[in-house]
Amino acid sequence: MKDDCIFCKIVNKEIPVKMIYENDNFVAFPDVTPQIKGHSLIISKKHFVNSLDMPASLGQELISAIKSVFDLKVKEDKSIEGFNLVQNNFAVAGQIVMHAHWHLLPRRKNDGKHLRLE
Amino acid sequence: MKDDCIFCKIVNKEIPVKMIYENDNFVAFPDVTPQIKGHSLIISKKHFVNSLDMPASLGQELISAIKSVFDLKVKEDKSIEGFNLVQNNFAVAGQIVMHAHWHLLPRRKNDGKHLRLE
Repeated sequence: MKDDCIFCKIVNKEIPVKMIYENDNFVAFPDVTPQIKGHSLIISKKHFVNSLDMPASLGQELISAIKSVFDLKVKEDKSIEGFNLVQNNFAVAGQIVMHAHWHLLPRRKNDGKHLRLE
Repeated sequence: MKDDCIFCKIVNKEIPVKMIYENDNFVAFPDVTPQIKGHSLIISKKHFVNSLDMPASLGQELISAIKSVFDLKVKEDKSIEGFNLVQNNFAVAGQIVMHAHWHLLPRRKNDGKHLRLE
């Protein structure tokens, strides 16, 4: 745990959030500034800066977490038909919280959104 | 392998590309329509539609591939200081080729780009 890290505080329950998923090494909760309805964050429990800093051995649990969170979102909202997974690594890529996290962005037909690097 | 799948044909060397990385279950090569310099695709060798269709057990190799491809890009171009990882799951999320793939988008200081869902 890193003292001044907001995501470590969330993992450590010092900052309360509505957890939607947990496994041994990852938790998931709603993004506080959602880019789309159901926007969820999957974060590592340990403080890794991003995926370069994270052992690849956690990859299986990460993919499990992604699948499970998507399944949960679909159960909540049958109009969800897909998702974008986004991870920003380092400040230059738009990473704001320096604790490894993956954005799961649920998508619906005619939601009028596009994911673009521009 | 799926007969009419362009990415299966790339894995199978029926369509030649400049491979930049390979491990047991993934290969990487440059995106033919790069959104940014160095835009690379990491794809599964087997035909999975997307991450929901892929066994989580391949997660470790996927994360290894992502780290390795980023390292390769940085070796090529020292101005790269980060990357966005993007994966689109299902047509509604903008998935065009229905074979699991991850976009690695190298980022540089003042590249003038932003990744946005809007």
